[in-house]
Amino acid sequence: MTPAHLQKLSPVPPRQVEINDGFWAPKLKTNREVTIPTVYQRCRETGRIDAWKLDWKPGQPQTPHVFWDSDVAKWIEAAAHSLATHPDPKLETTLDDLIDTIAKAQQPDGYLNTHFTAVRPDMRWKNLRDWHELYCAGHLIEAAVAYFHATGKKKFLDTVCRCADHIDRVFGTSPGQKRGYPGHEEIELALVKLYQATGERRYLQLAKYFIDERGQQPHYFDVEARERGEDPASYWAKTHEYTQSHLPVREQKIPVGHAVRGMYLYSAMVDLAVECQDHELLAAGKRLWQHLVHKRMYVTGGIGSSRANEGHTADYDLPNETAYAETCAAIGLVLFTHRLLQIEPDTAYADVIERALYNVCLSGVSLTGARFFYENPLESRGNHQRWEWHECSCCPPNIARLLATLGQYIYSQNAHAFFVHLYIGGNVTIACNGETVRLTQQSNYPWDGKITFRIASEREVDLTLALRLPGWCRAAEIKVNGEEVAIPPRLEKGYAKIHRRWQSGDQVELNLFMPIERVQAHPQVRANCGRIALQRGPLVYCLEEIDNGKNLNDLVLCRDKELAVNFESDFLGGVSVITGAAKRRQLAPWQEQLYRADLAATENIFFKAIPYFAWANRAPGEMLVWLREACYSGDPSHSTQFA
Amino acid sequence: MTPAHLQKLSPVPPRQVEINDGFWAPKLKTNREVTIPTVYQRCRETGRIDAWKLDWKPGQPQTPHVFWDSDVAKWIEAAAHSLATHPDPKLETTLDDLIDTIAKAQQPDGYLNTHFTAVRPDMRWKNLRDWHELYCAGHLIEAAVAYFHATGKKKFLDTVCRCADHIDRVFGTSPGQKRGYPGHEEIELALVKLYQATGERRYLQLAKYFIDERGQQPHYFDVEARERGEDPASYWAKTHEYTQSHLPVREQKIPVGHAVRGMYLYSAMVDLAVECQDHELLAAGKRLWQHLVHKRMYVTGGIGSSRANEGHTADYDLPNETAYAETCAAIGLVLFTHRLLQIEPDTAYADVIERALYNVCLSGVSLTGARFFYENPLESRGNHQRWEWHECSCCPPNIARLLATLGQYIYSQNAHAFFVHLYIGGNVTIACNGETVRLTQQSNYPWDGKITFRIASEREVDLTLALRLPGWCRAAEIKVNGEEVAIPPRLEKGYAKIHRRWQSGDQVELNLFMPIERVQAHPQVRANCGRIALQRGPLVYCLEEIDNGKNLNDLVLCRDKELAVNFESDFLGGVSVITGAAKRRQLAPWQEQLYRADLAATENIFFKAIPYFAWANRAPGEMLVWLREACYSGDPSHSTQFA
Repeated sequence: MTPAHLQKLSPVPPRQVEINDGFWAPKLKTNREVTIPTVYQRCRETGRIDAWKLDWKPGQPQTPHVFWDSDVAKWIEAAAHSLATHPDPKLETTLDDLIDTIAKAQQPDGYLNTHFTAVRPDMRWKNLRDWHELYCAGHLIEAAVAYFHATGKKKFLDTVCRCADHIDRVFGTSPGQKRGYPGHEEIELALVKLYQATGERRYLQLAKYFIDERGQQPHYFDVEARERGEDPASYWAKTHEYTQSHLPVREQKIPVGHAVRGMYLYSAMVDLAVECQDHELLAAGKRLWQHLVHKRMYVTGGIGSSRANEGHTADYDLPNETAYAETCAAIGLVLFTHRLLQIEPDTAYADVIERALYNVCLSGVSLTGARFFYENPLESRGNHQRWEWHECSCCPPNIARLLATLGQYIYSQNAHAFFVHLYIGGNVTIACNGETVRLTQQSNYPWDGKITFRIASEREVDLTLALRLPGWCRAAEIKVNGEEVAIPPRLEKGYAKIHRRWQSGDQVELNLFMPIERVQAHPQVRANCGRIALQRGPLVYCLEEIDNGKNLNDLVLCRDKELAVNFESDFLGGVSVITGAAKRRQLAPWQEQLYRADLAATENIFFKAIPYFAWANRAPGEMLVWLREACYSGDPSHSTQFA
Repeated sequence: MTPAHLQKLSPVPPRQVEINDGFWAPKLKTNREVTIPTVYQRCRETGRIDAWKLDWKPGQPQTPHVFWDSDVAKWIEAAAHSLATHPDPKLETTLDDLIDTIAKAQQPDGYLNTHFTAVRPDMRWKNLRDWHELYCAGHLIEAAVAYFHATGKKKFLDTVCRCADHIDRVFGTSPGQKRGYPGHEEIELALVKLYQATGERRYLQLAKYFIDERGQQPHYFDVEARERGEDPASYWAKTHEYTQSHLPVREQKIPVGHAVRGMYLYSAMVDLAVECQDHELLAAGKRLWQHLVHKRMYVTGGIGSSRANEGHTADYDLPNETAYAETCAAIGLVLFTHRLLQIEPDTAYADVIERALYNVCLSGVSLTGARFFYENPLESRGNHQRWEWHECSCCPPNIARLLATLGQYIYSQNAHAFFVHLYIGGNVTIACNGETVRLTQQSNYPWDGKITFRIASEREVDLTLALRLPGWCRAAEIKVNGEEVAIPPRLEKGYAKIHRRWQSGDQVELNLFMPIERVQAHPQVRANCGRIALQRGPLVYCLEEIDNGKNLNDLVLCRDKELAVNFESDFLGGVSVITGAAKRRQLAPWQEQLYRADLAATENIFFKAIPYFAWANRAPGEMLVWLREACYSGDPSHSTQFA
């Protein structure tokens, strides 16, 4: 290893992590017991499972769609990850049966896809731009790798290897090969996983080919369109930015186009940068990440503001009601950011992961675990509710697999240090200098910032414990065995590092002060001028009509009044709510007037805000994250003052 | 006449009105000298004029479009109205030549339409829902009536009578007739005009048939779709609300669908109510008008908030940046409201006419007279500029004909009274009890609220002069020959009525106090919560980037600071600007941060607002009507105070 070696940390895999806190553990239980079975059920009902029998005939209903395979694959991956930490023989049998069916659907040449085998065999590999063949193959590969890791069973892995071998024969720069790459990225990161699982370097080379070929001229999607007899200028998306193929990836500086596609591409770029020690590729990835989180990310961690391209528009263009902020894009942001975090342990990365996880990702699934958001707006008139299913149902299995792998986002380690990125209670077991060390993390996070760690180890162990001080936290205290440890005023990339010879029974207390914050957005975010978002700890809050009445936009928080936080154990599964004083204009004096020039009478009210992730779990109604705020003390136009 | 007779007033026609003020007279000159010639030139260049030669052949460019005839017809109407007040032999020759060509294009059965004669003769009268045959015919009729009134020449009138006769044979309830009506209303009000010009009651009956047949079941557009072999359920607009045919018109309570269509329909309903003394139809029209102006009208007078249907959405749904507010819809609102005003002289109607005229309508054309807005948003990022032409170019000739008929909106009279609705300087000549009375109106309106009227009459004349006290005006003074006249605290429908025996030389001075008003929108208009619109007199103001820098949404007007008004004679053709104190957040401290919780530093600035109608006449940039406003006195979080 050279000093420039890129991978600094390794995530501690979920298998070594037990989560038993009051916040996530119940959600993960719901994921296992409700979401994963529900997604399977919906896949069955809609024909996605039976599609693998390849017996669809023209005229029959439930025509296998180009993206169906990916839904099933993501469900398998979610179920496999679940098996890895929570064995379930019945689920494993269901998976084995499904994997048998999938294996039987494989064509002699290794090709594996329901739509282009059963419905349109003549169109195989003829429209990489618009259809999803390589995307589906990628998700099958990810699923097979996960299933292999969970069970040790190789059948599915062998199946996808044959498929990858086929793809490796079809695509490339040799004579007779197609110089194509996917319109919807995904296979690139999957091939890196397949390489890591099998050791077969061809898969890594194929991923590298897809990455480096992307955006080269002559543009493959145009070549391919002409071969189909189409005018490339008639491309519906109008720009290759939609698929991030407008430029070679190393030249890309700004995240553009379809957000999910971008996140999967950038994740693969970081994977390849690490595997190939490719600093240029990493630099491109980091540049894209920085632009994204500094200029194009919602306060919830949502990305991709527009429905038109399911993606990015312009810097600071973050409309609230029409926010697309697809659940899958947020999951992609977590995947991408987690990869960067392992290369450069910087809390800026962990902050983004935490922001997305606790807000936009969790919003993607109902508290019951059985209903789903595809889009996660920050404002609603009451017409936005979670679906039981979505025709384009990428998000439900994706949130299921994210939750099933939550453990891997909490800790990382290298030879010298053990990093705690997220404060999620439970136990983790790591090997450290030949010792097995068990760390217990305990807290009421995210409702409270006091976290206690306890070390258990047979022998003393020399280790740096690196605790993330979150970006939202302005003051923290650390005590080791009751003694306060000074936190340097300028921390190294946001981690408080405690180096010592740890003994079993050592205890570290971290106290992250967690007041309610009134967050402002950059002045160029037009939608949020004059507005604040309430945030406490990692949680962004919102108002719902059911608690606050209609016309949430007319409600103005009083900047000069205190806010209160209160944990309500029987409310929305147990959440802390924020309450405070606000004003709004009285409706009655307006009568039929639409416009008036005299000052409108206001009334004093108390508002109640709930965590954003918990919205839309009661009666449909308005919702608002970005709240108007004003200071009323000394305002002569407001004669009604609070007592 | 019964006491319930509906028509109370008659507008004084433009021929009797000379406009010579400093505001409108130059705009009307631009309309005659630039806009009308420009629209003709564009019609020529795009093939709209030559289409009447009917020599288009498949494969040729410039295929006559289904709505082209209406563009030409509206141009003829504008030019004809212009001739009526400003004779122009060259223009008249151009019109005569064009009318000859149109007359030659008429088919032996009277049918008159370029598209369905030259391009798709097989589809004549087969898709009233989507195409524009009756709409085009209506505009040709309006044009012919205007040309007849302007010149006394009957050729064009005879042509459209043959066309109307043909339509009268094709449509109706008799056996063999089609029970159709237009998808785009317009012919109804045109047929009433044709009846008034010719005395032929069949035209009135045909208008009444179109009005009463509309929205009856079985729905004609569905019947017609099935006859074309189409499934009515596949209708692109998804609802017959789009064409206001979801219900019989007498049952309609809420203005829905395409806004222009609605305005033309409602105008015709009022026309028919008067002609047929139909109180039920009038009640329906008034109900629609009230709903519209109380719940669905922009502060500029714009209506139809959505691009999707070029029309109405929901009550109080008035987004600013995406405001469609088509110029034609605003013109339609003026047409509709002007009709109601003649039935019930109430300043509520005149207020709406004035609001639309001075704001959204004038915004539809550039100060040069040669560029046009189709949409009139109330906020722009700088990407909305006037077009030289628009493929769907209904608006340019429509604004030209509105301006050419401006004179008719100023005054109305009946046997007893003379009403002044608008304060536009010039002379008007009326007949009153056998006397010819000349009234001279003089002012700097809309920059100043002092208006002087002088009477000239050979003999004394007994007359009530009814002066509109505008809704925007909270205090006014009236003097007759220097002596103050008491204005009753509760005026009759907003008009101050002065009854006396007038002598030549009598002078009335009206002083409308015209402070700058900070207008609020109803609390349910979500887009405008916490915002005010600056209005002075009838003019709504806006901020432009060129005067105020970027990020207009981050600018906050100081409620506790004075605003100033100043006339700038060399600016934008001479306008009063409003200046005042505002704050905005400093950008520099944000660096790369997208969100932050500490209070952002603000800077004090002075802003400059211009009349809305004059925006987008300089460098492209942001524009904003609804401005944030706050009171800073006593706000401890804002340490930087104004001196």
